[in-house]
Amino acid sequence: MNYRELSTPVLTVDLDTVERNLDSMATLCGRDGIQLRPHTKTHKTPEVGRMQLDRGAIGVTVAKVGEAEVFAGAGFDDIFVAYPIFGAEKLRRLAHLACDHNILVSLDSAAAAEELSRAASAQEATIGVLVEFDSGTQRCGLVPGPACVELAGKIEKMAGLKFRGLMTFFGNVWGNAEERHAETRTAADKVGAALEAFRAARMPVEIVSGGSTPSAAFTNGIAGVTEIRPGTYAYCDLNTYYQGVCGLEDCAARVVTTVISTAVPGRAIIDAGSKTFSSDLLSSGPKSGYGYIVEAPDVPIIKLNEEHGYLDITKSARKFEVGEVLTVIPNHVCVCVNMHDTVVTLRQGNVVGSWRVAARGRVC
Amino acid sequence: MNYRELSTPVLTVDLDTVERNLDSMATLCGRDGIQLRPHTKTHKTPEVGRMQLDRGAIGVTVAKVGEAEVFAGAGFDDIFVAYPIFGAEKLRRLAHLACDHNILVSLDSAAAAEELSRAASAQEATIGVLVEFDSGTQRCGLVPGPACVELAGKIEKMAGLKFRGLMTFFGNVWGNAEERHAETRTAADKVGAALEAFRAARMPVEIVSGGSTPSAAFTNGIAGVTEIRPGTYAYCDLNTYYQGVCGLEDCAARVVTTVISTAVPGRAIIDAGSKTFSSDLLSSGPKSGYGYIVEAPDVPIIKLNEEHGYLDITKSARKFEVGEVLTVIPNHVCVCVNMHDTVVTLRQGNVVGSWRVAARGRVC
Repeated sequence: MNYRELSTPVLTVDLDTVERNLDSMATLCGRDGIQLRPHTKTHKTPEVGRMQLDRGAIGVTVAKVGEAEVFAGAGFDDIFVAYPIFGAEKLRRLAHLACDHNILVSLDSAAAAEELSRAASAQEATIGVLVEFDSGTQRCGLVPGPACVELAGKIEKMAGLKFRGLMTFFGNVWGNAEERHAETRTAADKVGAALEAFRAARMPVEIVSGGSTPSAAFTNGIAGVTEIRPGTYAYCDLNTYYQGVCGLEDCAARVVTTVISTAVPGRAIIDAGSKTFSSDLLSSGPKSGYGYIVEAPDVPIIKLNEEHGYLDITKSARKFEVGEVLTVIPNHVCVCVNMHDTVVTLRQGNVVGSWRVAARGRVC
Repeated sequence: MNYRELSTPVLTVDLDTVERNLDSMATLCGRDGIQLRPHTKTHKTPEVGRMQLDRGAIGVTVAKVGEAEVFAGAGFDDIFVAYPIFGAEKLRRLAHLACDHNILVSLDSAAAAEELSRAASAQEATIGVLVEFDSGTQRCGLVPGPACVELAGKIEKMAGLKFRGLMTFFGNVWGNAEERHAETRTAADKVGAALEAFRAARMPVEIVSGGSTPSAAFTNGIAGVTEIRPGTYAYCDLNTYYQGVCGLEDCAARVVTTVISTAVPGRAIIDAGSKTFSSDLLSSGPKSGYGYIVEAPDVPIIKLNEEHGYLDITKSARKFEVGEVLTVIPNHVCVCVNMHDTVVTLRQGNVVGSWRVAARGRVC
């Protein structure tokens, strides 16, 4: 079946493109001598995680315990929960996983470490801990320096925990190439400051985990970083395209949608809205519009309601007709995938199968 | 169990508030002599739809066939699919439902009507049709006037279809009270123009379906409108609050979340991001921020990532600590509900049960 015959709206993923994207990142990391622990936030799908392991990834990264459970249930042994988990019920589940899986957790407070220790020791589990420091994103993470050493020292004394190193998110390494170059220097200084404090305290740091898709080609050269956790590279999207990280042909995930109304002059309305794309704005490039219409690149999607996408066709010579099928590259593929229970897999435009987005919606 | 003991992030709904909201709209419509066919897009939950029918609603409204299937499966007989459905597979399913349910569909093109007719007659079903006209939203809908009569005339001749009237969305009746007053006059003119064309053609119009939550108190007075389809009123949200349609105490749906990091100066980070709230911006009032923190109304949520909410605490005297629980009223409750498989029901802060959001994610 050709993808144009699918019931719409539907999210499709081209397998040839996914494989090429996974190969490229594996090659880059191999060349740079850095380990790859891909973040599954983009695909949320064990099938893709398996393809990443098959290409040399050392494990997978998730954000939430529910996601870790999905990947553990699918046979993954090494899971990094790159998130400071807090709350007794979630920590109990996490400690349970750690009884027979290699679980790593990142955190930035003694309070979170104490709760994690309590949960781990109650089940006689051992959980590896990375101390998170802030390399410029200003989200989570301690100031790189003595504060990290102090927390690591506390963790080393806590039952059920094993301090294994440092984690940071290179979320600031973003934008055009020049901006990413400048922010890479900032990030490198922060990594250096963190490692210097541990050297001064004569405390070994086994892992330094960094990364993100737009930063990968830049930050792999930062001294001391042992691994990266990019996610988006698996599918790519309009944000990564406008950052110059990929071409449009590398955007593997596309929403197939149908024009359902052309009654209002200057408008064509498609059956995909914020429940299909998410309402994430474009954060790179023109920073406007809700996706790239492959069949009509000059036509912007100017607005979304839950089930409606508004195409501004006033400046287009193309005619739009009710019932015609269009293909849209989403702004931000991670949140788009999270809207879908299933993605349909394609090769050369033909349907070859489907994947359940098994870790979709696991916020707890 | 108190709601503060729940594993976070979680979406809760206060039942006393929901009941009061449903009672209020039923009373308003009763007073105005207008029928109520609530849109289920807000709750996506048969349990709430049942509460609406129990208070006199004449049926429910959905946007997609998959949603109609969920409500039909839960025992609902009268379902209005307020959306121009296009595509053979979906239309086959819709016609199947119409074999033993009262199904209404709105559309604005002969192309959509022809496809619907083909599907209905293939299963010897009859589907009621409302012709959609545009009353100012500029989304779907014909220009009110002869074009509507012409399409209705075509529908009357099509097998399996029964023309039953007109539908419009008062999405333009929005904003502050003054703006809503002005837009109500626009909408009233459009309704008048549509009905005048049918009168001139001596063609009876049984149903004129309008509505939305912010417009309800205004447009119920428009001559000729027989029913409205508000949705948001069931739960209310920060948008309806800033439009003066409800008080904060009427916002029944709240996200319970935990502070997971305070390491970065001036920031507190909560475990709820765009995967919990959606990334919909506030479209009324200050038009900034991603939700209202009940315990700290002066602290804005300035940014969301998928799993992180960024609180700007620089101007707050309040201290935030890792592990503390906060309660957030979302900007736009419909899209927030769509992020959750389950909502937890409360009375007076205590958990009394949970609902599966059975129609969540049904985009097809």
